[in-house]
Amino acid sequence: MINVVILGTGNVAKHLFDAFMAQKGVKVVQVYGRNEKGLSVFGQGTPTTSDISAIANADIYILAISDDAIAKVSTLLDLQQGLVVHTSGSIPMKALPKKYSRGVFYPLQSFTYGRKVDFKEIPICIEAETEADYELLGRLASSLSDQVVIMNSKQRKALHLAAVMANNFSNHMYHLAHEFCDQNGVSFKLLHPLIQETANKIQDVTPYDAQTGPARRNDKGTLKKQRSRLKSKNQKRLYKLLSKSIAKTYGKKL
Amino acid sequence: MINVVILGTGNVAKHLFDAFMAQKGVKVVQVYGRNEKGLSVFGQGTPTTSDISAIANADIYILAISDDAIAKVSTLLDLQQGLVVHTSGSIPMKALPKKYSRGVFYPLQSFTYGRKVDFKEIPICIEAETEADYELLGRLASSLSDQVVIMNSKQRKALHLAAVMANNFSNHMYHLAHEFCDQNGVSFKLLHPLIQETANKIQDVTPYDAQTGPARRNDKGTLKKQRSRLKSKNQKRLYKLLSKSIAKTYGKKL
Repeated sequence: MINVVILGTGNVAKHLFDAFMAQKGVKVVQVYGRNEKGLSVFGQGTPTTSDISAIANADIYILAISDDAIAKVSTLLDLQQGLVVHTSGSIPMKALPKKYSRGVFYPLQSFTYGRKVDFKEIPICIEAETEADYELLGRLASSLSDQVVIMNSKQRKALHLAAVMANNFSNHMYHLAHEFCDQNGVSFKLLHPLIQETANKIQDVTPYDAQTGPARRNDKGTLKKQRSRLKSKNQKRLYKLLSKSIAKTYGKKL
Repeated sequence: MINVVILGTGNVAKHLFDAFMAQKGVKVVQVYGRNEKGLSVFGQGTPTTSDISAIANADIYILAISDDAIAKVSTLLDLQQGLVVHTSGSIPMKALPKKYSRGVFYPLQSFTYGRKVDFKEIPICIEAETEADYELLGRLASSLSDQVVIMNSKQRKALHLAAVMANNFSNHMYHLAHEFCDQNGVSFKLLHPLIQETANKIQDVTPYDAQTGPARRNDKGTLKKQRSRLKSKNQKRLYKLLSKSIAKTYGKKL
């Protein structure tokens, strides 16, 4: 049995809590949150506290809090034993106090409140300082996911930035498409199957090979016509730069 | 029974052919292609021709050919009856010769050779000139899809451009993420579940609401740090412009 304390009450904390509660080999012995209100959503069977000096003993302490708070909150901890980990992609392991056994437990997914995810498929990137800690953290991660990856802080930071491109930026493309649909009186919902298929396709072929469209074909006529149809300066500027970037990827110059 | 002639041997033609062959109420009476080689992938039970003056009689003639070829090939046709439609998002219906009953049959999906798609979920946008043609084209479209939408040429053109953003541009974001992963020795495959979830999420919430990340939070420190980590000028320029565009969407200025 691995005893765990979760520190934090946000989306990552809640999703990890729910996932651990469904495992036989893991026990959440306590949840810590700055205020009582945030703690109210955690199940009635699990002790909670808003007093950081009253943290229970555990094998692993998981700081599922915002990047900015990691250094500060971890300094306030007064623990006798156990492994302290955070869940951030971009913060190095060494941001945690040296006096503790340190580690990272980074689930690579975008968590939304109230939206269930299948942890089995979510890669969990772990980092630790000793063999024993790797073993412990690996066991915890494997209880949730089929994809546990050992990764140092530098690689994790790179992966996190790649995730910004793949998630934040592609979602913004969806938003631009939505905005343009609204401006032209067509339903964005019609694009759902296409968006789905675009995301599915790169499970089988690289995005390099999956690319289609006028910019890849270097079809200057269509590119010019489409750009002229856009409504705002922002749309036009993005359309131009993205088309250029795509053309460049295939060795062409617009 | 609706009798159909398919003109074209590319991805759209092949996918439509396979889909129609599985329907009881539709018969593909002939496939036309410029050359014999392209025609060889069409089933042995269906007559084919590479002679445009030998097109069989049918209720609907579907020009599933490239945008550039639509006007030219349709002029070469010499038909006695029936409805002539093309499958393009960006070409107006009126690009077809006036002497025929004209229409558009535009399935909104990105077709890849050898990759099966579920036509039931693909929106098919139709346009015609008469009630009777709308009825016929609507019946054909409904045989394949649960989402048949009547749409004029202007709306369809807008939808097509929105599809470029939602498909071509988001795929390019995946490519940039892939490139950055390769540059940093981490596996792009780790991002697959995140990409999937990002695409799934907008089925339930708008991309506006689904947006996360440093640009939405207007977290200037993280944005600056991430940008400095990018390897190429192209990556940096895109990162900056996309972050700006996201911040602007939420009423902030970077």
